[in-house]
Amino acid sequence: MQKKYLLAPGPTAVPPEILLAMAQPMVHHRSKDFEPIVASVKEDLKWLFQTSQDVMILASSGTGGMESAIANVLSPGDRVIAINGGKFGERWVKMCQAYGLNVDEVKVEWGQAVDPAAIEQRLKREPARAVFVQASESSTGVAHDVKTLGAMVRNHPNTLLVVDAVSAMGVFDLKTDEWGLDVVVTGSQKALMLPPGLAFVSLSEKAWGMAEKATLPKFYFNLKRERDNIRKNTTAYTPAISLIIGLQKAFELLKPEGLDGIFARHRRLARATREAMKADGLELFAKTSPSDALTAVKTPEGVDAEAVYKALRDRYGITTAGGQDHLKGKIFRISHMGYADTFDVITAVAAVEMVLKGMGHAVTLGKGVGVAQEILLAK
Amino acid sequence: MQKKYLLAPGPTAVPPEILLAMAQPMVHHRSKDFEPIVASVKEDLKWLFQTSQDVMILASSGTGGMESAIANVLSPGDRVIAINGGKFGERWVKMCQAYGLNVDEVKVEWGQAVDPAAIEQRLKREPARAVFVQASESSTGVAHDVKTLGAMVRNHPNTLLVVDAVSAMGVFDLKTDEWGLDVVVTGSQKALMLPPGLAFVSLSEKAWGMAEKATLPKFYFNLKRERDNIRKNTTAYTPAISLIIGLQKAFELLKPEGLDGIFARHRRLARATREAMKADGLELFAKTSPSDALTAVKTPEGVDAEAVYKALRDRYGITTAGGQDHLKGKIFRISHMGYADTFDVITAVAAVEMVLKGMGHAVTLGKGVGVAQEILLAK
Repeated sequence: MQKKYLLAPGPTAVPPEILLAMAQPMVHHRSKDFEPIVASVKEDLKWLFQTSQDVMILASSGTGGMESAIANVLSPGDRVIAINGGKFGERWVKMCQAYGLNVDEVKVEWGQAVDPAAIEQRLKREPARAVFVQASESSTGVAHDVKTLGAMVRNHPNTLLVVDAVSAMGVFDLKTDEWGLDVVVTGSQKALMLPPGLAFVSLSEKAWGMAEKATLPKFYFNLKRERDNIRKNTTAYTPAISLIIGLQKAFELLKPEGLDGIFARHRRLARATREAMKADGLELFAKTSPSDALTAVKTPEGVDAEAVYKALRDRYGITTAGGQDHLKGKIFRISHMGYADTFDVITAVAAVEMVLKGMGHAVTLGKGVGVAQEILLAK
Repeated sequence: MQKKYLLAPGPTAVPPEILLAMAQPMVHHRSKDFEPIVASVKEDLKWLFQTSQDVMILASSGTGGMESAIANVLSPGDRVIAINGGKFGERWVKMCQAYGLNVDEVKVEWGQAVDPAAIEQRLKREPARAVFVQASESSTGVAHDVKTLGAMVRNHPNTLLVVDAVSAMGVFDLKTDEWGLDVVVTGSQKALMLPPGLAFVSLSEKAWGMAEKATLPKFYFNLKRERDNIRKNTTAYTPAISLIIGLQKAFELLKPEGLDGIFARHRRLARATREAMKADGLELFAKTSPSDALTAVKTPEGVDAEAVYKALRDRYGITTAGGQDHLKGKIFRISHMGYADTFDVITAVAAVEMVLKGMGHAVTLGKGVGVAQEILLAK
């Protein structure tokens, strides 16, 4: 028997309470067994998103939610700016291209956050219908400054800020309304501690205004139809019922902690991990603005990060994530999202030290662990 | 305490074995914990679809699968024929219109099956890129003759037959390859006995050929990308992991019965229900070609079908379905799909008799039940 730990940046571990809630007998979605659940989670989603707007629930993974953001507010040929500082930024670019948009791609070095001033300059030079960005770029562990971008884009009446918050929502502060985040997308399998299969999307009034004129084709991801339905505690098409039942339970677990408590927990876990890794002589991949969702760790010269990832998995039953594309073999990534606490950090740090030692790398066992303990004790 | 029975035409009841399988701790999708599951279900899906082609797995409800069928094989302005004999036929029409296709809508009276000869005439008069149809139209309880349509469309090298098999696959015989069904779509929440949240789509070689030239925009529903991924036992985007784990268990339950056994069971349950309802003096809504997926029952003059539906639900804990649109108050619908057997029919028939009696309608208690027993005993 090997005990298993899921510390990958999505899907994340699902609490037993949620697994059991989802194991209840199936109910019909157009019924009194289910509509009150939608009525309850739709309010909780507004709390999570910090918005007074409707939050739509889609049966899809986060990528489907991202697609709905494009298809509902834009028209063929629209000029858009897509910030590409990692695998998911690249996805915005490819998606916008697939939809026949005129994409101005802003390449940001992986491991760096975008400079909002550079976006402002581009917007002033040539207007764009939308700016696409990740609040947290899971491939690099970097958080882009969506607050500053929001304040900036707000001054452009015909430009929307579209935020991929898949690995950010419920991790750190995202004031959808206050910061002017026009379209915000998240998924079920990160901080919400659910299996993958649900996406959630909010639109600002400005975004709904643009949606009126948007002509890109959409049907399954028609957000206006979803808005009409969610207001009646239902969805346009058959929802992923068991996952929504799980969502209700997730909110039961999360709400007593409060948003501030949830953000503080993620901040503490992430900081403890970062400082522990540094104490162990490892470098963080995020040069600036590390995301509290996950920590991307560079392995020293001569130490293959893939080998670390595999040793964590095979020797210790701990699933983290490796690097993607050109980062393969260079970094491994540890998640702090969702159902995670103090001893997930201790476990991860201790295991990394033991794996490195086992690979013959000079590391003082317990050094990083001690640093993490110090930070976690302080709360 | 009231015992609950889910006899609606989707979502259908989920067996406890599947609920428990889905309640296992979350695993990562790009891992040895999950890839063998995809490797196993992808073969089982070919068995179910009776195809040698790949069957793609999407994280969406059936409507998303329908949309993928359109977006992957067609281009803006393409002329298509959409058979509309109910709520789901209407969905094909609306979807095709949303995607800017030139839709030739063939209206079929609700309760009737389409006449394939009429489609052949239209095709000969003016070519079309695709013919859209339901194998089983859940709103009316009618099965369209997709076998004959397949044989016909096969003679038109530039026309595809696109089949919504959401409430047909795993219910009655659908020989995807042999009958020339070019695009076939189904969902998880019907005969597969799973919660909603998965769609499955197969394409014939002819359809893949047309997909090469199709220019409608797609990203999340890009089936070519999904085909490349399923061949490597994965999916393009994060899959609905828990549902796919449930799917593996569903196949474990279904395969020993064999396709012929599964079809015979549905046929027997449907026939028993139909004959019982007729014995009780009730009329079936399907005038021709009733589907074995569900039975749509007309209530006698003066008996509100909505009241029957509600009494079944509130007095007896049995969830069936009412009529949609102009059929509201005129019919109720009983499912035979998936996790259903002899005593689900007995329960449904007995309850309908008791409800009608309770409403003051002349009915001989046990008459329909006896007829059903006779048929079910004969197996």
